Amino acid sequence: MEFSFTSQEIATIIGAGTARGATTETIRDIASLSTARPGDLSFLGNPKYKTEVPACAASIIILPLDYDGEPRPGQLYLHVANPSVALAKLCSRIERLLRPKPAPGIHPGALIAPTARIAASATIGPLCVIEDGASIGERAHLEAQVFVGARAAIGDDCLLMPGARVASECVLKNRVRLQIGAVIGSDGFGYEWLDGHHEKVPQIGRVLIEDDVEIGANTTIDRARFSQTVVGQGTKIDNLVQIAHNVIIGKHCLICSQTGISGSVTIEDYAILAGQVGVAGHLTIGRGAKITAQTGVNADVAPGATLKGSPANPYLLEQRINVLRQRLPELFQRVSRLEKKFPAEKTSANA
Amino acid sequence: MEFSFTSQEIATIIGAGTARGATTETIRDIASLSTARPGDLSFLGNPKYKTEVPACAASIIILPLDYDGEPRPGQLYLHVANPSVALAKLCSRIERLLRPKPAPGIHPGALIAPTARIAASATIGPLCVIEDGASIGERAHLEAQVFVGARAAIGDDCLLMPGARVASECVLKNRVRLQIGAVIGSDGFGYEWLDGHHEKVPQIGRVLIEDDVEIGANTTIDRARFSQTVVGQGTKIDNLVQIAHNVIIGKHCLICSQTGISGSVTIEDYAILAGQVGVAGHLTIGRGAKITAQTGVNADVAPGATLKGSPANPYLLEQRINVLRQRLPELFQRVSRLEKKFPAEKTSANA
Amino acid sequence: MEFSFTSQEIATIIGAGTARGATTETIRDIASLSTARPGDLSFLGNPKYKTEVPACAASIIILPLDYDGEPRPGQLYLHVANPSVALAKLCSRIERLLRPKPAPGIHPGALIAPTARIAASATIGPLCVIEDGASIGERAHLEAQVFVGARAAIGDDCLLMPGARVASECVLKNRVRLQIGAVIGSDGFGYEWLDGHHEKVPQIGRVLIEDDVEIGANTTIDRARFSQTVVGQGTKIDNLVQIAHNVIIGKHCLICSQTGISGSVTIEDYAILAGQVGVAGHLTIGRGAKITAQTGVNADVAPGATLKGSPANPYLLEQRINVLRQRLPELFQRVSRLEKKFPAEKTSANA
Repeated sequence: MEFSFTSQEIATIIGAGTARGATTETIRDIASLSTARPGDLSFLGNPKYKTEVPACAASIIILPLDYDGEPRPGQLYLHVANPSVALAKLCSRIERLLRPKPAPGIHPGALIAPTARIAASATIGPLCVIEDGASIGERAHLEAQVFVGARAAIGDDCLLMPGARVASECVLKNRVRLQIGAVIGSDGFGYEWLDGHHEKVPQIGRVLIEDDVEIGANTTIDRARFSQTVVGQGTKIDNLVQIAHNVIIGKHCLICSQTGISGSVTIEDYAILAGQVGVAGHLTIGRGAKITAQTGVNADVAPGATLKGSPANPYLLEQRINVLRQRLPELFQRVSRLEKKFPAEKTSANA
Repeated sequence: MEFSFTSQEIATIIGAGTARGATTETIRDIASLSTARPGDLSFLGNPKYKTEVPACAASIIILPLDYDGEPRPGQLYLHVANPSVALAKLCSRIERLLRPKPAPGIHPGALIAPTARIAASATIGPLCVIEDGASIGERAHLEAQVFVGARAAIGDDCLLMPGARVASECVLKNRVRLQIGAVIGSDGFGYEWLDGHHEKVPQIGRVLIEDDVEIGANTTIDRARFSQTVVGQGTKIDNLVQIAHNVIIGKHCLICSQTGISGSVTIEDYAILAGQVGVAGHLTIGRGAKITAQTGVNADVAPGATLKGSPANPYLLEQRINVLRQRLPELFQRVSRLEKKFPAEKTSANA
Repeated sequence: MEFSFTSQEIATIIGAGTARGATTETIRDIASLSTARPGDLSFLGNPKYKTEVPACAASIIILPLDYDGEPRPGQLYLHVANPSVALAKLCSRIERLLRPKPAPGIHPGALIAPTARIAASATIGPLCVIEDGASIGERAHLEAQVFVGARAAIGDDCLLMPGARVASECVLKNRVRLQIGAVIGSDGFGYEWLDGHHEKVPQIGRVLIEDDVEIGANTTIDRARFSQTVVGQGTKIDNLVQIAHNVIIGKHCLICSQTGISGSVTIEDYAILAGQVGVAGHLTIGRGAKITAQTGVNADVAPGATLKGSPANPYLLEQRINVLRQRLPELFQRVSRLEKKFPAEKTSANA
């Protein structure tokens, strides 16, 4: 990434409270405290790295208001209430520089079917394919090699990154982001056993993605058998996640990488599923529940519960079991010791 | 999806046995019992939802022959032997409406190498790439952005969805379906440790996909080191599955999402692997075996066996262990109680 | 694959030490000992298959120097120090025949932005998209439908297979191979909780892939929040792996299929992660550590350690626990037996 900011520009962008020291360097990169060099900006986002600040070579360091050390010569400290938020403001500015809003229009190398409707303010990249009856909303941006199937609808201000694919009839509402290679609307995995083979059950439903959802790279979301698979408003889904047919995901959930949700599962609002979780079919995960990494959910989950393990247990129970599990060698020895003291022969002799 | 059927048309399509009540609504959607509204068709596929039928607002409900309630005013009950099969018939009809067989021909935006052979009845979509020596069978349909490598062969009546990719030399027999982004013929993961680095072992084999196989979205199937990786007739593979080099999968297996099969594994006919299963290399999973979700298979599996756990155990043993595992806190307390009754000091005094 | 070698050509390619017997067949395929037919070449790479050699019908069998059986009539034995290495030499030769180095040049169906720089010796396949400011090195080969984003840099002798995608600003050094559908530079999964929703944290860093790295099919590697995600020299990554933002992977590591590495993890040189491993965020896996399949790493790993289990334990401890875990039904019975001998009532009576 190529950018350049003076220290005065940085202070303005992040809304710095107070400053200490000074630098004449222009800032051309951001780096962690331990790797920063002159010309870099660094920040203390987590108190655990506080001891790395004095040796940090960055030209500017963003620090919390209560940090009381002194900058090195030619180094500027900028103090703010929340360094992470300050850094995010700077990153947003850099992002707009790196990736300016493209001009509206359709790349001559895109293939648009005659009956597709493309908003005049939308941007369609090279080698996109948009099929009959599809619609693309205002200011939507389809990057290169995107596919939008027949009668699919992409809302306003959506961003579809290279190679993202939305199959026929599926709907993305507004401000949805699809990362590279995301698949919306593959067939659900449904078969009936019939005369010695698996007969495909037609999958004629769609996928509905509500406002402000983000879907990760190469994640797959299956269309419903009928009706719809739904991802609720504001939910964020990471890379390589599998969402099966007829799943209903609520609002503002987080679903981390490589998690798999089986068919007809309901996930209520604000639930968080960590990485590599599996959820069996037809279950409900209650509002605000938290499922830790690699957990296998095989029963309904109460609202607010935190689960861990495969099969899943309440978090604290599973933590306790994991501690005791490691003591199994000891427990077997203790039982053997007891048995030696009171051997079976002796007991029968006593009887 | 947009369609419209009169009640008479519905009765004919599903082959209804008997009817009760009547509706003048045309059917324009399918919905579950709890969400259906007038103009929808619903069905009772699972007896557990029987109590939802009386309150269901659908204009038509498909019911088993022995359901004996009465429809609401303006509502039609259609009774059949198997509501799920009846619904599948209707869905098939809708699918044909939504996705009519395309006209044969090659889209002008497809790139076909000079020596590729395309059957006259095949349909090649926009931005497909078909390389030298590849062949595409009768009535095969390649949707948009599909890739078929050099000397690969696609059989009759195959359906390759957008962005599916078949690498050089790989073979799909007849009626194979590849979902969006499926990869057939990536290199196997093979290296030899040589002078401090991993030296790539050439992967010169192919992938053979037999008749009637379906491969899920973004699933990857590696070509063999030499000879071939095989997916047998009628086997169905879900999304995001990994099949490594030289794996041989038999006929009519089911392999669910995010499962990974290591190199040179043999899976015999009719086996079922649930989601997120892992299978270590060079093993055999016997005919009709069932592997439950998240199981880790690290030894050969007998035909017909059902396994669970990581590492895998026989299903009933693993179920028993999981129950006892949750009682570990109690067991540790019980052993401690026994030890307090018979402390080590006392024992040594007795000795 | 189509090729044909005389027995004399085979002996020369593999550098055979000694020969026994003779064949007039030309070799047109490679097969395992148990499946080989006349016209095939087979080999004994693993002593466990030694008993299959006498019945093997291959025209040529590559054998270790100390194998002392006699070939069948019309069969040739070629003895070498290491049959696997000999086979790899033959496979390399066949690979060069099957996939000759393509002629340099840009396919007329590729879309190259005006300010992209393409080395004259590079080969750019059909329907590739290369954006402004990107650069492609000497002899690099981009197969069909590859995407290279703005200001990304692809080094010399790289091979990007169909549908591989390198997002803006990302860097591949020399001799990097991307398998089909690999994604380099998707956004990291970063959000801040703000006023009841998840606010996206801009991801403005890049991905740096060093020399001689290979990345598997449909694997995803996220760009850094800032600075860079790094994959070190010579590391090999399998299919469907997830590498999150700001991960630093050292040199000559192996990361097997479906493994997921959370954000800001450091993996030191020569580490090996088997399939379906999960690693929690901000951890360090030490040099040369080995993590077995399906393990969940939730703490730093010492150099050279071998871990197993979810959560991870030292390998031998986990093996021991897994044995004892299967004996839990027995242990519960043993404790019950002890309790029956010494019931609580009796104890209190004694007290």
